[in-house]
Amino acid sequence: MSGNSFGHLFQFTTFGESHGPAIGCVVDGTPPNIDLNENDIQIWLDKRRPGQSRHTTQRKEADKVRILSGVFEGITTGTPIGLLIENTDQRSKDYEDIKNLYRPGHADYTYDQKYGIRDYRGSGRASARETACRVAAGAIARKVLGDAIDVRGALVQMGPHKIDRNKWDWAEINNNPFWCPDADMAKEWGSYLDDIRKAGSSIGAVIEIVARGVPVGLGNPVYDKMDANIAKGLMSINAAKGVEIGVGFGAAELSGEENADEMRMLDGRPSFLSNNAGGILGGISTGQDIITRFVVKPTSSITTPRQTITTSGENAEVSTKGRHDPCVGIRGVPVGEAMIACVLADHLLLHKTQCR
Amino acid sequence: MSGNSFGHLFQFTTFGESHGPAIGCVVDGTPPNIDLNENDIQIWLDKRRPGQSRHTTQRKEADKVRILSGVFEGITTGTPIGLLIENTDQRSKDYEDIKNLYRPGHADYTYDQKYGIRDYRGSGRASARETACRVAAGAIARKVLGDAIDVRGALVQMGPHKIDRNKWDWAEINNNPFWCPDADMAKEWGSYLDDIRKAGSSIGAVIEIVARGVPVGLGNPVYDKMDANIAKGLMSINAAKGVEIGVGFGAAELSGEENADEMRMLDGRPSFLSNNAGGILGGISTGQDIITRFVVKPTSSITTPRQTITTSGENAEVSTKGRHDPCVGIRGVPVGEAMIACVLADHLLLHKTQCR
Amino acid sequence: MSGNSFGHLFQFTTFGESHGPAIGCVVDGTPPNIDLNENDIQIWLDKRRPGQSRHTTQRKEADKVRILSGVFEGITTGTPIGLLIENTDQRSKDYEDIKNLYRPGHADYTYDQKYGIRDYRGSGRASARETACRVAAGAIARKVLGDAIDVRGALVQMGPHKIDRNKWDWAEINNNPFWCPDADMAKEWGSYLDDIRKAGSSIGAVIEIVARGVPVGLGNPVYDKMDANIAKGLMSINAAKGVEIGVGFGAAELSGEENADEMRMLDGRPSFLSNNAGGILGGISTGQDIITRFVVKPTSSITTPRQTITTSGENAEVSTKGRHDPCVGIRGVPVGEAMIACVLADHLLLHKTQCR
Amino acid sequence: MSGNSFGHLFQFTTFGESHGPAIGCVVDGTPPNIDLNENDIQIWLDKRRPGQSRHTTQRKEADKVRILSGVFEGITTGTPIGLLIENTDQRSKDYEDIKNLYRPGHADYTYDQKYGIRDYRGSGRASARETACRVAAGAIARKVLGDAIDVRGALVQMGPHKIDRNKWDWAEINNNPFWCPDADMAKEWGSYLDDIRKAGSSIGAVIEIVARGVPVGLGNPVYDKMDANIAKGLMSINAAKGVEIGVGFGAAELSGEENADEMRMLDGRPSFLSNNAGGILGGISTGQDIITRFVVKPTSSITTPRQTITTSGENAEVSTKGRHDPCVGIRGVPVGEAMIACVLADHLLLHKTQCR
Repeated sequence: MSGNSFGHLFQFTTFGESHGPAIGCVVDGTPPNIDLNENDIQIWLDKRRPGQSRHTTQRKEADKVRILSGVFEGITTGTPIGLLIENTDQRSKDYEDIKNLYRPGHADYTYDQKYGIRDYRGSGRASARETACRVAAGAIARKVLGDAIDVRGALVQMGPHKIDRNKWDWAEINNNPFWCPDADMAKEWGSYLDDIRKAGSSIGAVIEIVARGVPVGLGNPVYDKMDANIAKGLMSINAAKGVEIGVGFGAAELSGEENADEMRMLDGRPSFLSNNAGGILGGISTGQDIITRFVVKPTSSITTPRQTITTSGENAEVSTKGRHDPCVGIRGVPVGEAMIACVLADHLLLHKTQCR
Repeated sequence: MSGNSFGHLFQFTTFGESHGPAIGCVVDGTPPNIDLNENDIQIWLDKRRPGQSRHTTQRKEADKVRILSGVFEGITTGTPIGLLIENTDQRSKDYEDIKNLYRPGHADYTYDQKYGIRDYRGSGRASARETACRVAAGAIARKVLGDAIDVRGALVQMGPHKIDRNKWDWAEINNNPFWCPDADMAKEWGSYLDDIRKAGSSIGAVIEIVARGVPVGLGNPVYDKMDANIAKGLMSINAAKGVEIGVGFGAAELSGEENADEMRMLDGRPSFLSNNAGGILGGISTGQDIITRFVVKPTSSITTPRQTITTSGENAEVSTKGRHDPCVGIRGVPVGEAMIACVLADHLLLHKTQCR
Repeated sequence: MSGNSFGHLFQFTTFGESHGPAIGCVVDGTPPNIDLNENDIQIWLDKRRPGQSRHTTQRKEADKVRILSGVFEGITTGTPIGLLIENTDQRSKDYEDIKNLYRPGHADYTYDQKYGIRDYRGSGRASARETACRVAAGAIARKVLGDAIDVRGALVQMGPHKIDRNKWDWAEINNNPFWCPDADMAKEWGSYLDDIRKAGSSIGAVIEIVARGVPVGLGNPVYDKMDANIAKGLMSINAAKGVEIGVGFGAAELSGEENADEMRMLDGRPSFLSNNAGGILGGISTGQDIITRFVVKPTSSITTPRQTITTSGENAEVSTKGRHDPCVGIRGVPVGEAMIACVLADHLLLHKTQCR
Repeated sequence: MSGNSFGHLFQFTTFGESHGPAIGCVVDGTPPNIDLNENDIQIWLDKRRPGQSRHTTQRKEADKVRILSGVFEGITTGTPIGLLIENTDQRSKDYEDIKNLYRPGHADYTYDQKYGIRDYRGSGRASARETACRVAAGAIARKVLGDAIDVRGALVQMGPHKIDRNKWDWAEINNNPFWCPDADMAKEWGSYLDDIRKAGSSIGAVIEIVARGVPVGLGNPVYDKMDANIAKGLMSINAAKGVEIGVGFGAAELSGEENADEMRMLDGRPSFLSNNAGGILGGISTGQDIITRFVVKPTSSITTPRQTITTSGENAEVSTKGRHDPCVGIRGVPVGEAMIACVLADHLLLHKTQCR
């Protein structure tokens, strides 16, 4: 209710600040009798973990997760799963300089105004470090979804450079540090981002998440439509400024004839001839791929001095010295996947309450 | 929980099908001692009401709202406000033809697959008629927000035709049937939409909602960020396929320098030199205008025959004969306003629980 | 969230004041494809309806329920079920006298202090009239539970007069105006309550609800234990001051040996040799009868003058002239049954989310 | 939603099994700018901690709590407070014997039936060990309530032995190992419980919690009445079988004249001449002491062999060898206090959303 829980039935609650002793997560609602061990979660955390290439922040966090409850002899028991990740590489002194400054584009000002107090070290609760908990919860969500449902993400745009969708190859995703499905574009991004990083600047990006194998019928209209909950989940990710489903904003320019996905029986099963809907109609999954995108703004932690004010209301300049991501969108890929997996798991459980 | 309630503290629950006896809404959490009468709600319902120009569906609904509870001698009492709107102009026979057909782009197929039963008359629960309840709830939300906070919407794109933002004039909004703030574009849209309507086709649109006067500090990070709840609220509107805040998807192409809104003290108060953030940082309002957009797909109710299947799994063709909107985006404007007002009211109440 | 909804998945929201135009209820979460018509609900409302014997309030309310949504051709569709009951026999003038007085034992003072405004007519929202909505929701809950689960209630104590449990005969319940399972005690109560009514007084009572056929495994420890939700549901009923499960307060005097219900295999199935637990262990149903009791205080609407204060803070006397129940416990029986049915339906749906 | 969270706005979520590595708690919704350190919580945990006298279980747990988040330089920040308590004195081998047996009166059978899997070591999630988390949350709730509100508990009945209410002296509470306010009765209990413990038996008890200083106006009728949430909170405590408010079950025997608490102006302020209501009318606090009681059954872990069945469905006998409480009611006192503090804190925050 106060903003640190996500989901209805597959529900997780996170806590922890960037520079506190630990961050953690309680995942409630997991069905019993599912195989689960720490490695099942660790593999996804490793994907998000910073410091893996020159293109992400150089903070070195092991992000080692411990399961504290809810699993007995390697099997879920249906009781809440407590997860703990200790913070190990805090360099809080980096932040002393900005303790009394509001960094433009950050949540410094708004947290201070709302709460009247702020843990300024590493952005405290507003740090992208919190997303490790989302990824951990997402790993458990994948277990709930089972092998038949697959959630994958890709970076599809960095700055003005969009991938060529004709060159989309999921196999390329792991061959470059960007989760880019277009091998040629990955190369281009490499040098493009080097320049940005060296200039102490940053750049925005667009991430696409695709869920395959989702059965028809998931989603609770009219206020818990699957797309509504996806929008909430993705927009809650740090730096997100927009979300779209299927053809998304492109729908504005389509006619009814162009937009509506026609149906045919194919091999005795209902099929769609296109997927402008992105796999969701009336807030309920169609059985097609669920396709969604979100945009992530450039991090505001840049070395160029910017105008700002101090906490005591004086004009000032600020430039950020900490370790940051030139394109936070990259690490947004596993986070976006996790949120989609969690929304799907939640709707899978919600569906069973009313229907088979 | 099952999808028919929206909000946490300012919470409304709706019920009703397009062709049932009535639709209705229960608004819970309203503070006591606020002036409220039926006309306060009716004025907003009238704005959404169909059949007001040739550009919207010709269904004639009075949309007369009755307050059944929660108000005593013209003043809210803090108890739940029950609202009822009777359906008067159902023409269910229009829908007999499509009873056994899944209209492409509609929720027919997904409702049937999910629930195993479907009220096919006028799309039942999936009808845009449900949005009248949102508008009614939004009217009460405006009362909770008070006069200092103002929520206004405009249609900013129809098909490929975008307004000229330099010509934006809020005063124009009520001078044309599109809620268009650009007088020239309104004229263009008039003839453009005539053509579409006459062709039995439809077209998508983009709506922008601006909330002015929102105090700094509203929003509950990290999962109930104000933008996350806005995204959920707007994406839950019928036909919505995308939502963005501030610069939105444009953020992908911005550098950190360009994107971050710099701050200065102005007349002794913190001010921002730009508003790429759309009035929200870290999920908390900045005190600037909250600016958000959503895209609405073209209605799939078109007269051109489309390929589909029957409920018994045979290939078929369908064309829709009922009364429909050539551009549902138009009536989406008051609905979008209502959802933003409700999210704001909810966050206003949420804020008071922890702070001041 | 603001207190007018009950349940998690089988959730109902009520609205309405005693002397407003109508009261109503929205039931969300009902599975689709269940037969449901207005009569299915009416039969239970009729059981609660006032004015059926000289032992209850003489207010004459038809309590005619209308289903406004969620049912199509006699079958639930899975969408929210809107229910409306119009108020027809309000005699608000009866209450003019007490407009400025706080009746001892009523919620007059607390509503005024909380909200700063109060609909004093017939106690407004605090009226037992609201319980008609609970009974209506309970009728739908029974449909969700199906025929194999049976929820029945009985009055087991009125004033100092307790039934003889050895004479318990469910068949007697409908043979007297008290839902008393002990025919001899029913006669005694008849004359006892006549005296109380004639004296303009009132008396407390204890109600017992028994749910038979509940499968083993329902309940969500540790905070949504079935008994915790039962306690909440029953304690939320007007005038309730205590709730107990199974042996209840008697457990204080039992030893571990006496209290623990031993188990044996019986006809190849696990069985219990006693039911001190009242059918719930660790917050989860055991498969035995769920047995619960709640106590209802005497109504404070009595003709004897009592000391009180006025809304403007002066000492005064008050005696209540309206139509009231000498023993509200009687009409509490169908209300208690309804709340138990709703809790069970909720837990039935909750159970399916994690298990089977 | 799946049962491991309590409260609406002041909300805590717990995790952990009796013999897992740790138990923990996330407290969300705490207002910012409250002094809070680990010792503020530890003092209450120490009160509940086992092994402090011969009258409680001899398990030795340090119950050392760590604050992992939500506090910055000794002040709450408004972000979620993560709490961790490591388990140190598990003796899981004690439980090997009962791995395949259902102990009568325990949750063994119901957990197994519900989840199909059970952590049998020390009762897993069903262990009273979980209540340490409630006490920790309660300590933070007390901070939210502030010094003006005081929540205290006492054991008022053990077996058939009730305290003499005329001898009630709060100062005695800390002078005996029972939290008994009647010094004479405390002595009697001492020898009474020695006998029970030596016999390997156990006994039930009644606990009374009194909250002083609660302002008038807290509580959200009609389903989140303060008494309804108290009932839920107390009934969710391990072994609880009944809850009552004020005069409680005694209300059955009272007339309307006797029961209704009369009012007078006293020193210019509204006052009540009695408190049968237990400080709550219509679900809203009256400003008087909130008085509530709950009964706790005797623990079923006794050395006398009892009839039961095995997990594979054979008749068997069981006697429990682990370390247990002869009267769990004793340690129930701080747990009951904590739950009441949490309900009050929740309603304090809820109240501010609608009212001043």
